[in-house]
Amino acid sequence: MSNEKKAKAQAGINIALIKYWGKKNTELNQPAVGSLSLTLDTFTTETTVHFSDACAKDTFTLNGSTRDDNRVSSLLHDIRRIAAVRECATVTSVNRVPTASGLASSASGTAALVTAAWHAAGLPTENLVHNPTFLDLVRRGSGSAPRSLLPGLVELERDSGQITSLWSGSDWPIRMVVAQATQGPKEISSREGMAITQASSPYYKAWVEQHPRHLRAARDAIAGRDIEALGHLMEVSTMRMHACMLASDPPLRYLKGVTLQMMDCIESLRRGGLGAWYTMDAGPHVKVLCLEDDVSAVVDALSELIDHDRISVAKPGPGAHCIEP
Amino acid sequence: MSNEKKAKAQAGINIALIKYWGKKNTELNQPAVGSLSLTLDTFTTETTVHFSDACAKDTFTLNGSTRDDNRVSSLLHDIRRIAAVRECATVTSVNRVPTASGLASSASGTAALVTAAWHAAGLPTENLVHNPTFLDLVRRGSGSAPRSLLPGLVELERDSGQITSLWSGSDWPIRMVVAQATQGPKEISSREGMAITQASSPYYKAWVEQHPRHLRAARDAIAGRDIEALGHLMEVSTMRMHACMLASDPPLRYLKGVTLQMMDCIESLRRGGLGAWYTMDAGPHVKVLCLEDDVSAVVDALSELIDHDRISVAKPGPGAHCIEP
Repeated sequence: MSNEKKAKAQAGINIALIKYWGKKNTELNQPAVGSLSLTLDTFTTETTVHFSDACAKDTFTLNGSTRDDNRVSSLLHDIRRIAAVRECATVTSVNRVPTASGLASSASGTAALVTAAWHAAGLPTENLVHNPTFLDLVRRGSGSAPRSLLPGLVELERDSGQITSLWSGSDWPIRMVVAQATQGPKEISSREGMAITQASSPYYKAWVEQHPRHLRAARDAIAGRDIEALGHLMEVSTMRMHACMLASDPPLRYLKGVTLQMMDCIESLRRGGLGAWYTMDAGPHVKVLCLEDDVSAVVDALSELIDHDRISVAKPGPGAHCIEP
Repeated sequence: MSNEKKAKAQAGINIALIKYWGKKNTELNQPAVGSLSLTLDTFTTETTVHFSDACAKDTFTLNGSTRDDNRVSSLLHDIRRIAAVRECATVTSVNRVPTASGLASSASGTAALVTAAWHAAGLPTENLVHNPTFLDLVRRGSGSAPRSLLPGLVELERDSGQITSLWSGSDWPIRMVVAQATQGPKEISSREGMAITQASSPYYKAWVEQHPRHLRAARDAIAGRDIEALGHLMEVSTMRMHACMLASDPPLRYLKGVTLQMMDCIESLRRGGLGAWYTMDAGPHVKVLCLEDDVSAVVDALSELIDHDRISVAKPGPGAHCIEP
C-alpha cells in the first residue's frame, strides 16, 4: 500500500449464463436466486479513487463528464466510515461499456469502484473476495457486481452471498460474441424491472423455485466441460427470466425485433451443426456462447443482421484487480 | 331440411382475447382454461358435405386439392354413427385463411365442417350451439373451434364446454386489424406446442391458476364496453401465454422479429394517445384490437413494417351457419 490514498482498479463485465432476476431483500440488495456468469476480458471499467484533503467534496467523473450518482456517493460514504477516512474523494472512471443499456456496465463499474476505493482507503486486502464487508458493499452497488470480482466462470450463492470460481483455466477455449442490438439506454432499469416482476408476475414464484435445480445442472456441465449442455441450460435460463418478466402486468419486455432475428439466426446455425447459444440480459443485446473455432461463423452470420462494428468477441477475463499503485 | 343429404356451411375464424393454452383432457380435447374470443367476418371457411351412395369412399378437397386428413375422417365417422347414416361423404372446402400458420384456420375449418356435416346428416338442429354432442364434436376437431359457432365476443367455459355470447350487437364499433407477419405454415402445431408446454414449463401451473380472475375482469370490461380495459387484459393474457411456452425446455417460441417490431409500433401509437392493443396466437401474426375510427392509423403504421396487402381489417362476424340448402 502506498502512503497516497489513491488506487486504480480494473474490472470486466460479466454475463450471466444462469440468470438472476428478483431480490430477496431490497435494502441489502440480496438476490432471490443464485447465478452463474462468465467474466469477460473486454468491456472493462477502469476507476481511480483518490481520497485527498485537496478537494472540498466528492466528485465523480465518468468518461470525461462530471455527474452526481447516489450509488457512488453512498459507497464512498460507507468506505470512509469503515476505514475511518475523512477526506473527500475524486473518482475518475473510464467505462468501455455502453452505459445502462443492459450490457452489465453497472457490474464492471461497481466492481472497479469498490475495489479501487477499498484499496485507496487502506483497508485490509487479504483474501478480499471472501471478505463479507467488501462483498456486501459490492453487492449493494449492483446485485451482479460480485461476479466480476473473480475470473472466468463464477457462481454467486444466494444465501451466503459468496462467490466461487467454477473455472478460470486455459483448458477450455470458450468465447462470447457480444452483439449490440440497439444504441442508447434502456427505458426501465433492471432494479425497477425486478420490482415490477416481483409485484405483478404470477410466474415469479415458480421462477425462484425451479432455479436451484437449473444451477446444479449448469455446475455439472461446467465440471464436464460440456458446452452443449451449458449452452442449452443458458438458453433455457434466459428465456425463463424473460418469460417471468413478460408475464408482469403491464408486460415487461426488454427484447426487440432484431434480438429475435439474432436468436433465429443462432438457432439456424445450430440446426446446421454449429455449437452456438444465445443469452440476453435485461436489454436487447445478444451474447453468444461458443468455442473459439466457431467464432468467425457466428460473427459472419450476425453481421448480416447488424453492423459489423457492433459485434465484439470476448474471452474469459480476469477478476477485478488493482492496476495502480 | 332437404331430402338431399347435403349442406354447405360458413364459419369465420375467431381470435382469442383471453387465451387458452393447454389441455385438461387430451382425448376429449378439453381446454385447461376458459377463453374469450372475437369471431371475425373475414377469413372464413365454406364447406360442403355431401353424403351419397354415388361415392365409394370419403374424399376431402381443400382449396382445390384432395387430401387425407385424419380429423376430417374421424369427424365424418362420428357423425355417421350418431345419425345412422351409411353413405360416404364428399367434402369440399374453401378456406380463405392461411392454413396452419397460427391464424386459427382450424377453428373456422372445424366449425364449418361439423356444421355442414351435422345438417347434411339430418341431425336435429334446434338450439344447436348448446347441444353437448355437437359441441363435443366441434371441440374434438379444434379446441378453439366452438367459439366460431357464435357471433362477436364469445366465452368458452372450461368445465362445461358451453359457449356464451357476451356481445354481438351494433353498439360498439370494435375492429380487428390482422397483420400477417410471415408466410408458410408454422413449425410446431398448437396441439404439439401445448403438450410441450404442459410437460416442461415450470410456469404452466401458475398460468392455469391465474386465469379465472383474468377472464372475470375481461367479462366486466365487455359489460362496460371498456375497450381500454379489454385491450390491456388481452395484451397481458397474450404475453402470459407466450411466456408460459417460452419457459419450456427447450424454449418454445412462435414470435418472430417482425412480430416484436409490430408490438413496438402499437405501443408507440398508444403512447401517442391512440387506443390499439395487440394479440398473437401460436404464430407470428399480430392482430390489433381498436375502434373503427382508429383503423386507418393502425393500418398506416403497420404498413411501414410489412406489405400493405398482408394487412386486413375485420369486423365482428356471425357465428357458423348453413348457407345451403
